[in-house]
Amino acid sequence: MRYKVCVLGATGMVGQKFVQLLENHPWFKVSALAASERRIGKKYGNEVEWIVSQNIPEYAREIEMVPLDPKQIDADIVFSALPAEIAREVEPKFAEAGFAVSSNASAFRMHEDVPLVIPEINSEHLGLIEVQKRKRNWDGFIITNPNCTSTMFVITLKPLLDRFGIKSVRIASMQALSGAGYPGVPSLAITDNVIPFIKNEEEKCESEPLKILGKFKGEKIEPANFRISASCHRVPVLDGHLEAVWVELEKNVSIDEVKDAFRSLKPLDLPSSPKEVIVIREEPDRPQPRLDRDTGNGMSVVVGRIRKDAWGIKYMVLGHNTVRGAAGASILNGELLVKEGYV
Amino acid sequence: MRYKVCVLGATGMVGQKFVQLLENHPWFKVSALAASERRIGKKYGNEVEWIVSQNIPEYAREIEMVPLDPKQIDADIVFSALPAEIAREVEPKFAEAGFAVSSNASAFRMHEDVPLVIPEINSEHLGLIEVQKRKRNWDGFIITNPNCTSTMFVITLKPLLDRFGIKSVRIASMQALSGAGYPGVPSLAITDNVIPFIKNEEEKCESEPLKILGKFKGEKIEPANFRISASCHRVPVLDGHLEAVWVELEKNVSIDEVKDAFRSLKPLDLPSSPKEVIVIREEPDRPQPRLDRDTGNGMSVVVGRIRKDAWGIKYMVLGHNTVRGAAGASILNGELLVKEGYV
Amino acid sequence: MRYKVCVLGATGMVGQKFVQLLENHPWFKVSALAASERRIGKKYGNEVEWIVSQNIPEYAREIEMVPLDPKQIDADIVFSALPAEIAREVEPKFAEAGFAVSSNASAFRMHEDVPLVIPEINSEHLGLIEVQKRKRNWDGFIITNPNCTSTMFVITLKPLLDRFGIKSVRIASMQALSGAGYPGVPSLAITDNVIPFIKNEEEKCESEPLKILGKFKGEKIEPANFRISASCHRVPVLDGHLEAVWVELEKNVSIDEVKDAFRSLKPLDLPSSPKEVIVIREEPDRPQPRLDRDTGNGMSVVVGRIRKDAWGIKYMVLGHNTVRGAAGASILNGELLVKEGYV
Amino acid sequence: MRYKVCVLGATGMVGQKFVQLLENHPWFKVSALAASERRIGKKYGNEVEWIVSQNIPEYAREIEMVPLDPKQIDADIVFSALPAEIAREVEPKFAEAGFAVSSNASAFRMHEDVPLVIPEINSEHLGLIEVQKRKRNWDGFIITNPNCTSTMFVITLKPLLDRFGIKSVRIASMQALSGAGYPGVPSLAITDNVIPFIKNEEEKCESEPLKILGKFKGEKIEPANFRISASCHRVPVLDGHLEAVWVELEKNVSIDEVKDAFRSLKPLDLPSSPKEVIVIREEPDRPQPRLDRDTGNGMSVVVGRIRKDAWGIKYMVLGHNTVRGAAGASILNGELLVKEGYV
Repeated sequence: MRYKVCVLGATGMVGQKFVQLLENHPWFKVSALAASERRIGKKYGNEVEWIVSQNIPEYAREIEMVPLDPKQIDADIVFSALPAEIAREVEPKFAEAGFAVSSNASAFRMHEDVPLVIPEINSEHLGLIEVQKRKRNWDGFIITNPNCTSTMFVITLKPLLDRFGIKSVRIASMQALSGAGYPGVPSLAITDNVIPFIKNEEEKCESEPLKILGKFKGEKIEPANFRISASCHRVPVLDGHLEAVWVELEKNVSIDEVKDAFRSLKPLDLPSSPKEVIVIREEPDRPQPRLDRDTGNGMSVVVGRIRKDAWGIKYMVLGHNTVRGAAGASILNGELLVKEGYV
Repeated sequence: MRYKVCVLGATGMVGQKFVQLLENHPWFKVSALAASERRIGKKYGNEVEWIVSQNIPEYAREIEMVPLDPKQIDADIVFSALPAEIAREVEPKFAEAGFAVSSNASAFRMHEDVPLVIPEINSEHLGLIEVQKRKRNWDGFIITNPNCTSTMFVITLKPLLDRFGIKSVRIASMQALSGAGYPGVPSLAITDNVIPFIKNEEEKCESEPLKILGKFKGEKIEPANFRISASCHRVPVLDGHLEAVWVELEKNVSIDEVKDAFRSLKPLDLPSSPKEVIVIREEPDRPQPRLDRDTGNGMSVVVGRIRKDAWGIKYMVLGHNTVRGAAGASILNGELLVKEGYV
Repeated sequence: MRYKVCVLGATGMVGQKFVQLLENHPWFKVSALAASERRIGKKYGNEVEWIVSQNIPEYAREIEMVPLDPKQIDADIVFSALPAEIAREVEPKFAEAGFAVSSNASAFRMHEDVPLVIPEINSEHLGLIEVQKRKRNWDGFIITNPNCTSTMFVITLKPLLDRFGIKSVRIASMQALSGAGYPGVPSLAITDNVIPFIKNEEEKCESEPLKILGKFKGEKIEPANFRISASCHRVPVLDGHLEAVWVELEKNVSIDEVKDAFRSLKPLDLPSSPKEVIVIREEPDRPQPRLDRDTGNGMSVVVGRIRKDAWGIKYMVLGHNTVRGAAGASILNGELLVKEGYV
Repeated sequence: MRYKVCVLGATGMVGQKFVQLLENHPWFKVSALAASERRIGKKYGNEVEWIVSQNIPEYAREIEMVPLDPKQIDADIVFSALPAEIAREVEPKFAEAGFAVSSNASAFRMHEDVPLVIPEINSEHLGLIEVQKRKRNWDGFIITNPNCTSTMFVITLKPLLDRFGIKSVRIASMQALSGAGYPGVPSLAITDNVIPFIKNEEEKCESEPLKILGKFKGEKIEPANFRISASCHRVPVLDGHLEAVWVELEKNVSIDEVKDAFRSLKPLDLPSSPKEVIVIREEPDRPQPRLDRDTGNGMSVVVGRIRKDAWGIKYMVLGHNTVRGAAGASILNGELLVKEGYV
């Protein structure tokens, strides 16, 4: 089983992460790397300012980049690492032309007929694909994964919602530099500093999880019925978003019941799936970004410091923002599409 | 007007900050620096591993250190930068011997008859001094200032409580390295990392503010009647604690009303008092630790990003943890003691 | 005495530093801030992304920016913070139009008839101004200050050359982030890292000092007669270039003789002149960028760890790269022009 | 082939690195972990403050620590990660008792009869073992590996010396935090800073390489006949020592000849040997610590920026200080002992 895949926006930070994670993928083989006009026809290895690891994967060096044009691409799945404003124009062209688009871009996440999917949480939302194809008269379709910050805590909310019910959620994020892309945050801005603002991030954290945790009702998603309030901050850390989460629950629960709920979330049988979706650390000072971000090859989220307070529980959650929170999430979604027969 | 003051624990991080802030103080003159046994009789300038600025203040270099013994110290006010466990033994000896002790240590903060004071917030709590002297049969007394993290947000809670009423508070802190003293946090632990745990810090943040915002009832403090839930984290920043705060209010308010409340908190006429107690920044990405920690010579707290959410308001607050949150706070308390006639 | 001065390139990193250092200058008053086309007519306070301190100086907020056009500027001295390629076009227009240009740009530093000046080292090179005006038929003129990295060590070389003679110099720099401007170095590139390359920097370090230490012979400079080999590296430090220097001397000298030579370099009687040009630290681990960069308001260079080796001496030197190494250097040169009667 | 090995000083930074690198070693099996008195009898997993990776290797968790006493240890090779002052007392006891001691400590490196070995450079120095055993009347023996900073550049000097002859060497180091152990460098000392001093480091860099590059003459080593001058500095980098090196050569050479010399250094057929001893990067801005330190599993040194100057060549060299510069070096020496029949 070897599907041809293309990466749109392959030279950016997230694009590089796709290229890295797709090396030696058991199901997928990169057939094309697409980039902006000025790079067309040039070799990936000569054009990219490689930043995500020591060396560009050998397989990608000699690939000549192609334009963001469906006619010039041969692929079973198209992964999109495009910026939102470009994704808005380009992704529909690919979907219309019959491609399965698994996008990390925010452009279509909140569209009513576009699945916003984390395979372990809401794979049944793929049912929207038929709705989407019908309504838009497309041969292909778009599915999306959530914003990196939303991803980490929404994974932990799922078992809490199912078992105990949720009344309210507050989250404070301490987000890594790689979340801002490359060149991204200037070192002069962040050295010996925290920047307590990330554009549009709080809005995404307050809306995306409600769609993900919503119910698929045949034609559309009925969003989850609670409210989230987020405060998002950039810290001088390379990779790994750390989040403090407060959850008011419908029931009074013990910490052991919470752990049991977290452990109940089962991994899927997909190549990029980690052995444990939620890893619980018992040390008083974990998870920490540098030590824990690579847990499960960056596809697990790591929880720690589960405590009770006057209204429910609070805990820390950490995940790798460019793996589980971006490229890895799109690839996992692509794998789900294969398994569920959509490609 | 020139009072003699002594610093207990003068060689540590906070002790150094006292020595720095007391240089050229208009009311206070350092008459003694007290330290642990092995340093007695040695010159401060030779013993201290000076870390808080480029050079040790000239005045302090030649001071011979004395023991933590009331009999060997001549001072009107004793400032304590001692660790809690030592403060617990030593501070009562000074109070018993007739000294006015203004302590930054946590040892006595929550004792029923010990004022926990921020001059602009609850100076009337000094009324406890008489209670304390009577109950303990001391000639002197101890007053304390709160934990550095509590200090920043409790200053902002005061006008909100007075004007709008408070139902609940959550705070997530991003705390500076200097809060852990020296040598404190190893660079290997915090580089490219966040440590989501600071021992006893959340407990302090959840209890101290309720005492500070409580009402002095002649013999004791009746604590404020709401609950706080804190999550405390260490980030790679030298100075300045940044905090994300959520406040559920009794009333529905506009952001302008909140700003108006913050601005209503007036500075006192004391040497270390800043011109503005709460400074409001209007930029979308402020306050930031490195840029804003020295506002009002480190004695202002800086607020920004005031937003409404489903239950009330959220905002950022920042303050200099070793100035407004430690040595500067104790000195301001000492100034208040002078002004109010307690020394 | 109050001269009108203009800053060319006022919104960049070094431009901001000019604006900051010119606040309350006793001799100079900012009459114009010039910037690129898209900013013309806009207020400085609204356009600049202020990064060098907490707040934009009040005086500069409301200044409307003007183009890089001599006809639209009224000034006695023009300070240039322009990038080299723009300076190459613009600065001659100002010189031709009669302005005294004191430039931090590299464009004309090595031109035979352009003084490259550090006032305490080679003020006699101002004699080239007459040569320049004559040869180029200009009413005004250009003078320059050296590259930031060269500045620090060449100041220390001057007294060594005069007293002992120099056979060879090697320097290894550890340069601050601010040297790359803003946004400059991406945080993703430099966190937990050193970048051992700064474009054209080694070439500048190997040529500029020989001109500065050269002899003015009426019509031109005869460069100093030794060789320099530099290795330049970027480290995660905000401000302050630290340099390890090896000097082979013509004579065998003692460390005390070296210190005596360093102390012999006398400050000038100019507003921006520090009390000590070279400050010697005796501690085994100084100078350090964060602790020592502001020595003499950033206008001193700080030397430490003077040691002998098989061929001569080695030592550390540190200076503030955007003050003594850039804006402060140009301003000091402007002050020298006034004192020497060139404006 | 499975030899029993013991680690002395197993809980420190370098000790942890031994424990990590010995996991799944093809030749060696950890039979004992030895530590200071207070840890004896306690489980390694409970005692160690594990800092070098996410998790303690499973195999080591339950090992009960034993004292630094030869009688209580059963091992074929003893690896020493002890501090120098303790190594001075303890290592001879093990050697006397018949153990093969492969030490990372500095205590015996410069002793006349103790081999200071980098297998690819001077394996013939193992001949000193017989001299040592005879002179000291020991059943066992001690061999050592050099200081981490010396290791990186001495590996590059070997082929230069053999092919071209060396007249002089200067090196400026930018050393990682892990080189100072744990807790080591306080974050308050190194954030936004460089510390230009590492105790005894320059002395080691100026003496150890001359012994390593010396000739084994049957009874002793005749040191290499040139001089080194070092300047050592600590930078805010987790792992990886970066060094700027100037070498005056006996011959005038081209850069290609230098590269050819570097490539001529062949790896040995040992389990920890990297495929390439010296890796040459052609990019203008490499090697960089974060990107290149893990080259060859941390056992290669990476060279870049080879340039000519007035007197010879200069280049950058980087290596992983706790792998090739410490634990990995001792293990490689242990492997060499096995291969050469000394154990």
